[in-house]
Amino acid sequence: MTYEVKSLNEECGLFGIWGHPQAAQVTYFGLHSLQHRGQEGAGILANDGGKLKRYRDLGLVAEVFKNPADLEELNGQAAIGHVRYATAGGASINNVQPFLFDFYDMQLGLAHNGNLTNTQTLRRELEEQGAIFASSSDTEILMHLIRRSKKAEFLDRFKEALSKVKGGFAYLLMAEDKLYAALDPNGFRPLSIGRMKNGAWVVSSETCAFEVVGAEWVSDLQPGQLVIIDDQGLHYDSYTTETQLAICSMEYVYFARPDSVIHGVNVHAARKQTGRRLAKEAQIAADIVVGVPNSSLSAASGYAEESGLPYEMGLIKNQYSQRTFIQPTQELREQGVRMKLSAVSSIVKGKRVVMVDDSIVRGTTSRRIVNLLREAGASEVHVAVASPPLKYPCFFGIDIQSRRELIAANHSVEEIRQIIGADSLTFLSLEGLIESVGIKTDAPNGGLCVAYFDGDYPAPLYDYEEQYLESLADHTSFF
Amino acid sequence: MTYEVKSLNEECGLFGIWGHPQAAQVTYFGLHSLQHRGQEGAGILANDGGKLKRYRDLGLVAEVFKNPADLEELNGQAAIGHVRYATAGGASINNVQPFLFDFYDMQLGLAHNGNLTNTQTLRRELEEQGAIFASSSDTEILMHLIRRSKKAEFLDRFKEALSKVKGGFAYLLMAEDKLYAALDPNGFRPLSIGRMKNGAWVVSSETCAFEVVGAEWVSDLQPGQLVIIDDQGLHYDSYTTETQLAICSMEYVYFARPDSVIHGVNVHAARKQTGRRLAKEAQIAADIVVGVPNSSLSAASGYAEESGLPYEMGLIKNQYSQRTFIQPTQELREQGVRMKLSAVSSIVKGKRVVMVDDSIVRGTTSRRIVNLLREAGASEVHVAVASPPLKYPCFFGIDIQSRRELIAANHSVEEIRQIIGADSLTFLSLEGLIESVGIKTDAPNGGLCVAYFDGDYPAPLYDYEEQYLESLADHTSFF
Amino acid sequence: MTYEVKSLNEECGLFGIWGHPQAAQVTYFGLHSLQHRGQEGAGILANDGGKLKRYRDLGLVAEVFKNPADLEELNGQAAIGHVRYATAGGASINNVQPFLFDFYDMQLGLAHNGNLTNTQTLRRELEEQGAIFASSSDTEILMHLIRRSKKAEFLDRFKEALSKVKGGFAYLLMAEDKLYAALDPNGFRPLSIGRMKNGAWVVSSETCAFEVVGAEWVSDLQPGQLVIIDDQGLHYDSYTTETQLAICSMEYVYFARPDSVIHGVNVHAARKQTGRRLAKEAQIAADIVVGVPNSSLSAASGYAEESGLPYEMGLIKNQYSQRTFIQPTQELREQGVRMKLSAVSSIVKGKRVVMVDDSIVRGTTSRRIVNLLREAGASEVHVAVASPPLKYPCFFGIDIQSRRELIAANHSVEEIRQIIGADSLTFLSLEGLIESVGIKTDAPNGGLCVAYFDGDYPAPLYDYEEQYLESLADHTSFF
Amino acid sequence: MTYEVKSLNEECGLFGIWGHPQAAQVTYFGLHSLQHRGQEGAGILANDGGKLKRYRDLGLVAEVFKNPADLEELNGQAAIGHVRYATAGGASINNVQPFLFDFYDMQLGLAHNGNLTNTQTLRRELEEQGAIFASSSDTEILMHLIRRSKKAEFLDRFKEALSKVKGGFAYLLMAEDKLYAALDPNGFRPLSIGRMKNGAWVVSSETCAFEVVGAEWVSDLQPGQLVIIDDQGLHYDSYTTETQLAICSMEYVYFARPDSVIHGVNVHAARKQTGRRLAKEAQIAADIVVGVPNSSLSAASGYAEESGLPYEMGLIKNQYSQRTFIQPTQELREQGVRMKLSAVSSIVKGKRVVMVDDSIVRGTTSRRIVNLLREAGASEVHVAVASPPLKYPCFFGIDIQSRRELIAANHSVEEIRQIIGADSLTFLSLEGLIESVGIKTDAPNGGLCVAYFDGDYPAPLYDYEEQYLESLADHTSFF
Repeated sequence: MTYEVKSLNEECGLFGIWGHPQAAQVTYFGLHSLQHRGQEGAGILANDGGKLKRYRDLGLVAEVFKNPADLEELNGQAAIGHVRYATAGGASINNVQPFLFDFYDMQLGLAHNGNLTNTQTLRRELEEQGAIFASSSDTEILMHLIRRSKKAEFLDRFKEALSKVKGGFAYLLMAEDKLYAALDPNGFRPLSIGRMKNGAWVVSSETCAFEVVGAEWVSDLQPGQLVIIDDQGLHYDSYTTETQLAICSMEYVYFARPDSVIHGVNVHAARKQTGRRLAKEAQIAADIVVGVPNSSLSAASGYAEESGLPYEMGLIKNQYSQRTFIQPTQELREQGVRMKLSAVSSIVKGKRVVMVDDSIVRGTTSRRIVNLLREAGASEVHVAVASPPLKYPCFFGIDIQSRRELIAANHSVEEIRQIIGADSLTFLSLEGLIESVGIKTDAPNGGLCVAYFDGDYPAPLYDYEEQYLESLADHTSFF
Repeated sequence: MTYEVKSLNEECGLFGIWGHPQAAQVTYFGLHSLQHRGQEGAGILANDGGKLKRYRDLGLVAEVFKNPADLEELNGQAAIGHVRYATAGGASINNVQPFLFDFYDMQLGLAHNGNLTNTQTLRRELEEQGAIFASSSDTEILMHLIRRSKKAEFLDRFKEALSKVKGGFAYLLMAEDKLYAALDPNGFRPLSIGRMKNGAWVVSSETCAFEVVGAEWVSDLQPGQLVIIDDQGLHYDSYTTETQLAICSMEYVYFARPDSVIHGVNVHAARKQTGRRLAKEAQIAADIVVGVPNSSLSAASGYAEESGLPYEMGLIKNQYSQRTFIQPTQELREQGVRMKLSAVSSIVKGKRVVMVDDSIVRGTTSRRIVNLLREAGASEVHVAVASPPLKYPCFFGIDIQSRRELIAANHSVEEIRQIIGADSLTFLSLEGLIESVGIKTDAPNGGLCVAYFDGDYPAPLYDYEEQYLESLADHTSFF
Repeated sequence: MTYEVKSLNEECGLFGIWGHPQAAQVTYFGLHSLQHRGQEGAGILANDGGKLKRYRDLGLVAEVFKNPADLEELNGQAAIGHVRYATAGGASINNVQPFLFDFYDMQLGLAHNGNLTNTQTLRRELEEQGAIFASSSDTEILMHLIRRSKKAEFLDRFKEALSKVKGGFAYLLMAEDKLYAALDPNGFRPLSIGRMKNGAWVVSSETCAFEVVGAEWVSDLQPGQLVIIDDQGLHYDSYTTETQLAICSMEYVYFARPDSVIHGVNVHAARKQTGRRLAKEAQIAADIVVGVPNSSLSAASGYAEESGLPYEMGLIKNQYSQRTFIQPTQELREQGVRMKLSAVSSIVKGKRVVMVDDSIVRGTTSRRIVNLLREAGASEVHVAVASPPLKYPCFFGIDIQSRRELIAANHSVEEIRQIIGADSLTFLSLEGLIESVGIKTDAPNGGLCVAYFDGDYPAPLYDYEEQYLESLADHTSFF
Repeated sequence: MTYEVKSLNEECGLFGIWGHPQAAQVTYFGLHSLQHRGQEGAGILANDGGKLKRYRDLGLVAEVFKNPADLEELNGQAAIGHVRYATAGGASINNVQPFLFDFYDMQLGLAHNGNLTNTQTLRRELEEQGAIFASSSDTEILMHLIRRSKKAEFLDRFKEALSKVKGGFAYLLMAEDKLYAALDPNGFRPLSIGRMKNGAWVVSSETCAFEVVGAEWVSDLQPGQLVIIDDQGLHYDSYTTETQLAICSMEYVYFARPDSVIHGVNVHAARKQTGRRLAKEAQIAADIVVGVPNSSLSAASGYAEESGLPYEMGLIKNQYSQRTFIQPTQELREQGVRMKLSAVSSIVKGKRVVMVDDSIVRGTTSRRIVNLLREAGASEVHVAVASPPLKYPCFFGIDIQSRRELIAANHSVEEIRQIIGADSLTFLSLEGLIESVGIKTDAPNGGLCVAYFDGDYPAPLYDYEEQYLESLADHTSFF
């Protein structure tokens, strides 16, 4: 088993719509605004009067739907779409969603965001009963559970299936006459309902899609909630009462787009607030504040405002770096040839710089950026991180399933400071993070999942329990 | 003749290197950092011990060199590269540079950035003498002039040719044993010399490439200057003494990357200064400052600092918009479906917003953004533009050759304000722009070409004279 | 339901190998020689010490494995491969074989050639029990039956599954430690065993692959036979005793490659013999014999030898026509612009031509070729067809599932002659076909399935029974 | 200088049309039928009322014009097209024809088939005068000569240019109001005029295109002839009187399509006649005749008819081999794995085989095929070649410019027999070839160029003289 953490990755984005003559087109634009949640593949499934059709491929949304005809063929008044994030294990079109199931008695379309924790157990049980899985994705599990349920009504079969899967999940299920949206009992992932001017209902992983498609926010799905949409309107239901909000705090810190609003909190505002709080906690004497583009710019501007220091563009990200196949060789790197990020010497030369970053995973990137700033002439580099140290794996949707490469799981703050070569290193306190986000809720930790910071998981780990314990045994250097 | 201005486009970027074992690779990274200067096509020509080889194609640098083998085949210690900007008239690989010329007595490689003003006259003269042109680009002209020169020495032939072409140009010429760089008598385009740690000389349209390839800045090419690089080192020469610096002011306002330094002035700093000056000149009562991403963020932060207003992320640009083939239909647009840019209601709602933009060309984009902000709930939208009104065409390298679509050539500031729907509209004064940039020079207009603002061209227009006069006659509404 | 017969198409080709260090490479060359059996897609599944890997895509074998690396990654000493024929209903990579199944307890690979007749019934039964199908292909059925079998031993489960599927089938099943080959109870499709010089066993739809991979023929699979190959050697078994040979006669007439040998009969020799017999039955006074390229050349040369008439190249097929996207418009066709086939006037001018074709499906092609020959100056055109009239649909693997477009199902020979504009038209007698092929067997019809000629199906039609009866009712003009 | 002969390759095919509303479409179909003359690239240039447009690319005609829109954009009543054969030196789109020249005073389109012998001399002269060449093709030379001519009339300038180029050439030149066709003074390459039903004039390298586009043959261009076509009709002219027919004999032996007629002789008939003559000259005792597909089938059928032996399909060519990227490794080859060609054991086993081939270049292919037949069980293999031994290079259009790899330039017939492993080897006599073709003419060698057989070139070699003499010196083993 390989324990490798590439970088922080999130699992997918969902968009759904009911009641619009150009449902697939709107879904296209919705997915486009969710592209940051997954770049490996994309697909749209349309419901044309009860007949489901689908188009999907590997690549960005714009690449998958390069040929307008492919989108135009997806007629119908309802649609669901999915963007899939890049996994380590090799891309296969088979795993690109939404899935489309053709049964003798019905068609169903399914899209899923999150990570189940009892996949292995359920899959083995199902295969022992003769089930055949078509993909390595754990999304199919739900469909097998639905189809094997003995309940008379479809809705009851769906609820029974939802109560059997564990972990973090948001589902969009398209039936011939209804669109369903469901969220796990902790609400690990965001999922919101909106309404367009023409009355169409939309569902999206993030509200940024609402700004793009001209929809008004209606509600956020609550833990354990199930929403049913059809031509009669929208109906709220639930499949469990054992719920407790624990939304992934990294959505606020890093994943979500700054213009999204999650549980009443604007992401940019939350990040700016972490920056302000960080400035108060850190109290660093410096000349300028520089954010690591692009995710740390909100926090950096908050830091600058609170500290009174000027906010400067000392690091520039090459906006064309996304799809570059050629990287500098080791030899060229030693000569200073680099891509993606460069430090602006005319800005940082001779300055004491506060470099604000959103988080530190392995520390290698931080070390490179500190070094860039020093080479460009910064006299001091103080690293301020707008979240606490990442110490524990996540099993509910973020791609950190080991502690081996989490630098903070293995080193003290002072050790990390030395490794990355900073003059000082400050992490935001856990309390500071929770208060900066400030969701209005009575749930523990202010409604946030902060397990990667404190190891206290809001739900059982099931099939991952053993893997988690191994990882603890493996890395004994707690601080 | 069609008079259409798409948006502000610049003509190309150049990178050259002499004395590095991986010359083509370094050129690749250099071009990558100049990608913003041209996205239509790219090419690299390497000099392998006197034998020139070249690879080019349509597309971004990363796409052209998708296959590492294509880059690896470009062996040699010297190279020149080129990125070409997207023209309206249909892309052809024939026009992608560098050009490679195989003669019975030598090989020559040529790359060109800018626009000649006497192309038509020279081309006709040459064709009357039997010359055949292989492309519609005006770059070939120089080569015909060199090859027809009667001078004995190659350098003298090159100088004679340079003295015959008029307009804005920066050339990189690769001979079997030398690399030449030359700039027009007004220095309309930036071109700088740097040096890598291993001693290799590099030439680049912008110094941002130096940060990327680990080179130190050595000098900026001066108007009329000619630089000769070979294994013996670098030698400065000139082909004319009738020179006067008039570098394109839009390089500072819009084209160049913020981390570049041109004639001693950092672009981000210049932009921030235009924002400060604009704040002083505008004196608008407002709650927040919002920049139009990405080019106006420096000016906006300057404006915020000077005015004391908070700088907020009220507009979000979708970073994946670059290559989208599907656009919202008219019907969807009316329903509010949009891409690329969205306004963040949770930030702008109920606020008096100063929206800082770098320039206004046709006004249509400005109108759309003002509208976005209003729909997102802004109570007032004040547009502050960090450059003067664009009123006149450019014939030296920017793709504005008509006045028909320049909104400021046809309307007063008050009319423009009404058209774009702003509560107020302020342009930076010409004096403000010149002083904000602040090049250390005695040349008129602080060494800047500001002809698109005041109609006072720093050099004769030659073949374009008639077109210019027509355009004046056509649009009589001067203010 | 659309009743359309494009042309005669066959369903797929299979190749398998056990015991060769470059199993996938050999399979590649084997599939290449079976390319005529399917051009829509191709795939290879390799067994690397019990671990199954697979690569597949749409396109010709050479296109699918354009990148040698894709083939090289398929390590292992055993492999199965498949070429899929082009269906009308839109190509999907999901249907390209071999299929690969990953279970918790084993991996299995499956490739299938033929058409099941009880797919619909079985699929519905399985879905009612909760089964989910991943493709629209009927190949998956077998796997569901295997996995749901209650037998203790894998071999017994496989046999039970084989006894439940009906129709025409040849299967290759790759398990972790064994390769299985199985044939339906009528042996509708050919499947042969061979052995390479190094001792590796190979299985192929046609023996032409043996010539290509340097293998010796060992045996042909018999109806109802099951062959098991592993490191201990090859073992013959069977899953039913109710068998009777009825191999598709169109394999000899049209589908198979002339160099293949099926049940002891070389295909070229069989075709030549049909030509000889046709000459005896037809007795046409003529000057030259011309075959329709390429499939009718063997029959034509037999006709020429028997009749004593010279065999001439009066029709030329453009060898580059395979992948042409642009066809002459109606207007151009009327002006005589055509592709693919042209008649050679200097050969046919003034001649009485016997045009030998292998079969007539819709008659449109025949009409066009007769017309070509007349325009080129032939004084008479006598059409001689080396098979009987096609009157009935096939449900065991040929893509004729309706009678609507079979010209011979709706018209008498004299009517067909008039429609195609021939001076005379002769079909080979059914007896003539059976005797010309001459398999050494006691089975009825000389071991051939000739149901498309006489309507007498060698096995029940199951789910197709109703469709068959409808088609009879629909077309009452029997002769 | 590398002396390598890949195999016999011919240089390109031409098609032109004047007076048809869908000129480009007709050209497409014409080029398609000339595809055998060149597979590297293709292009069409259309004349839309005096405005020339062009589309070209690397690949087969069907690939180049994959997108129907590209063809549809080529409006106009006249067009010229070109197919280019695959050269060793790397494909470049720059060399794909027709060429399009945009001058200030006119547009010209040019396509060329053949090889000039004084290219190097002319190119150097022109470059010394300042000319710049855009391609490595020698086609541009003519255009430089035209543009530099001092004659007043365009026609005179064209004639002057034609009289300066030497070697083998067929040109199609499209001017704004005229289409010109011209042939070299020896008529090395075929070029014919035809007329469509609607009155449009067509010009084609081979008459097979006339069958395809429904045109009637009008005339063959004569050596030194120049044809001018415009709306007034067709006019015959000439640019020289020093002419003598010496058409490439390999057109009849190998290059041309069997359905073409060249100088009154059908190619299939000529080949069949060489087969008959060969049978008379060889007098081999054998059981069957087998032709090497596809080019030798006509000769083989002639041999069979004359000798009274049966003509059998003992060798099968895989029709899908054209574009295969993966070849058997040496190891697999030794195990008998092969592609492209296979021998049919059920046909050749125990038989004395006459294997008829059109020509022998390097002998390696012959050796492989003889071996194939023996492995398949042939008891004797007698090789009969339907042309004389190839001993000398060609400088007029066939890609043999050295003698090093011509097996017959270096070995006696008996030595070749041993090398290829045949039981006997017979070449057709030179007299036999000339008489078999039988053009009605008084020119020497029956109007054929047979220089590769006897070393007697019908025209001076100019720039190639030295290369030729070197090649003689290099290979002294003449027989």
